[in-house]
Amino acid sequence: MDKEQAVAVGLLGFGTVGAAFAALLEERAEAIVALTGRGAALSGVLTSSSGDFAEILGRSDVVVELMGGIEPARQYVLAALQAGRHVVTANKQLLCECGEELFDAARESGVQLRFEAAVAGAVPVIRVLQESLAGVAVARIHGIVNGTTNFILSEMERGSTYEQALTLAQSRGYAEADPSEDVSGRDAAAKMAILARLAFGTSVRLEDVRYEGIEHLQNDDLQYAHELGLGLKLIGTAERTRAGLSVCVHPAFLYAGHPLASVSGAFNAVTIASNAITEITLSGPGAGGRQTASAVLADLLSALSLPARAPAPAQSLPLVQDALSAFYLHMEVADRPGVLGVVAGVLGRHGASIKSVLQRGMGDNARLVMVIHPLAESKLREAVAQIAALDFMRSTPRAIRVIEEEAS
Amino acid sequence: MDKEQAVAVGLLGFGTVGAAFAALLEERAEAIVALTGRGAALSGVLTSSSGDFAEILGRSDVVVELMGGIEPARQYVLAALQAGRHVVTANKQLLCECGEELFDAARESGVQLRFEAAVAGAVPVIRVLQESLAGVAVARIHGIVNGTTNFILSEMERGSTYEQALTLAQSRGYAEADPSEDVSGRDAAAKMAILARLAFGTSVRLEDVRYEGIEHLQNDDLQYAHELGLGLKLIGTAERTRAGLSVCVHPAFLYAGHPLASVSGAFNAVTIASNAITEITLSGPGAGGRQTASAVLADLLSALSLPARAPAPAQSLPLVQDALSAFYLHMEVADRPGVLGVVAGVLGRHGASIKSVLQRGMGDNARLVMVIHPLAESKLREAVAQIAALDFMRSTPRAIRVIEEEAS
Repeated sequence: MDKEQAVAVGLLGFGTVGAAFAALLEERAEAIVALTGRGAALSGVLTSSSGDFAEILGRSDVVVELMGGIEPARQYVLAALQAGRHVVTANKQLLCECGEELFDAARESGVQLRFEAAVAGAVPVIRVLQESLAGVAVARIHGIVNGTTNFILSEMERGSTYEQALTLAQSRGYAEADPSEDVSGRDAAAKMAILARLAFGTSVRLEDVRYEGIEHLQNDDLQYAHELGLGLKLIGTAERTRAGLSVCVHPAFLYAGHPLASVSGAFNAVTIASNAITEITLSGPGAGGRQTASAVLADLLSALSLPARAPAPAQSLPLVQDALSAFYLHMEVADRPGVLGVVAGVLGRHGASIKSVLQRGMGDNARLVMVIHPLAESKLREAVAQIAALDFMRSTPRAIRVIEEEAS
Repeated sequence: MDKEQAVAVGLLGFGTVGAAFAALLEERAEAIVALTGRGAALSGVLTSSSGDFAEILGRSDVVVELMGGIEPARQYVLAALQAGRHVVTANKQLLCECGEELFDAARESGVQLRFEAAVAGAVPVIRVLQESLAGVAVARIHGIVNGTTNFILSEMERGSTYEQALTLAQSRGYAEADPSEDVSGRDAAAKMAILARLAFGTSVRLEDVRYEGIEHLQNDDLQYAHELGLGLKLIGTAERTRAGLSVCVHPAFLYAGHPLASVSGAFNAVTIASNAITEITLSGPGAGGRQTASAVLADLLSALSLPARAPAPAQSLPLVQDALSAFYLHMEVADRPGVLGVVAGVLGRHGASIKSVLQRGMGDNARLVMVIHPLAESKLREAVAQIAALDFMRSTPRAIRVIEEEAS
């Protein structure tokens, strides 16, 4: 009798999150009945080697997609939505690349597409953006949305080299054997595209997001930054500027009191700023099978008992490729008089004004470390290119963004 | 035409939050139409000196209660729910004292009672508990839910006395002329009762919450704690223990890496722990007219477009009055041999084991500062009473809770 009434859940994908979701569904059976008035039970599981999608769809009331990747996930999710099934997914790539198509399909069929687990695991940033902040004009989002890179940077701040930190992340299961998706910033870029779509109602694809990874960071950058009172994180930013919407992912130094500065290890956190709310921050584990599965389960329960607002069709804020930022500049220079004056001159001609300078070392070890007041990234890049060509430079200058207390 | 279709919003109360809400409703008119398909306009405002409730109810589709206090707010909210109107309120006292009656009325009429703004202002902890964590068994909540006391403690950590910090809070508008509701812990206790009701499905009234304020804290407690690597906050705790549900508010020392340790000034933050999600933290401004009004507006928009799950009727976890905690003990003692041994003996006989000790000063200034490993609060209180009676004590010992890295 209960079995007949139970909601039939078709599960696509049975990796770490899929298995954790199946376990949680059993474990929380009683709570599910209490919340929705019905039980929920798996009606079929599609893995890479077994199961037939059409068959599973036929006997499911709702579909949970945890396979990842674009195809065949896209076909399956589209088919499920078109067949009038609610869909819950954790697939950031799919949403980032095919979001509009899927949102349209959900809207046309009058069903829900929920995807809390696609960004920041158990941290409920999607629901907060869609519902709690629905009445608010979001000005800016800053996020640490990739736990692997945050773990590596935390270890580097404690003295490890990049290679040591990466090896440790791999041994703990935080990083893949091929870590490029994470350390290149690409994973974070896809997640920021999804958040930007929801916060600013503008369709953003991966190719619209400027991103930069952490592979090129050096330990001495972290040490100098520490002396300047700054901590280093891989920060995604989506903000409304006068020119339009800017979405990017970069290593960035944060002042010590910034709400994201204390987020360490494999955690994720997102800060949402608006004139009306000042700033709220959500943080928690950004990955982990069980944590992500709990976000999937919450979406499933919501889909069964609470209608959702589908994201409105995308508007068109222009996407801008240049934004204001403060910068940290690290230069290895020949130890000779006048070097600082020449560098300062180049910066000044590009409109860059210097906030602080550290001069370190002598002879072959001489370094110049500066923090530059906010200016357009394009201007800074031009200045850095000119500085790189000066005859006293001993290596390519390194420029890293700085998020200051008073954001521009 | 638009006017006819607009949702008629009856506003009860026109203080800081009421005025900010009315302003936000106009300011966000376009976004409201985009989200709900209709406009929303005030149909009447009830203030202490003008307006008639029955008349306003008659021409309102939904009622927003921002008057505060129990009566007449209770009568008005009940009448509105019984008349089939959704109600949005920011009234923590009302929810804490009359929550079950109101939830029942909402359930019977099939309407919504939303109250995000009652706890932690713009920080969306109510929605996250009710929806994002619906499928999760919450183990424990720790919260900084009173911005006034957090501001005062932040100032005291920077060297102010309690009186100086309170005066500054009053001059900035963070504290009332009569600050007792805040500094006694009573305001935080009401908010923790509401969070505990949602997280643990158990009815909790103010009288069920043990609470203690910050009026008796001394600057040297903060200094010694700083040396022990601990920071001081007024922390609300709601946790499921073996014996039942424990809800309390106390000044507590937090280790430096705790997610609430970096929350300073008038901010609020809540950490929710569960086996399934590890721990998520939400933080942001806990007060402010505009911030609180934005939470009210989000509730209003949700009420207009998304059905809510009313909290299920309360279960009955037993409420326990005793809980395990680590403690900091501060004792002014006569400077004579054997004092530490006698104190340690009394503690040992009550099952208290000492984690760390600082001995400071000489002669009339001799102090003993200890951190005690977790034990039942009742046992600690017994031990402290015995210690207070020892002939070498120069004043009453002070005991403050410590929240340790590995919570029990």
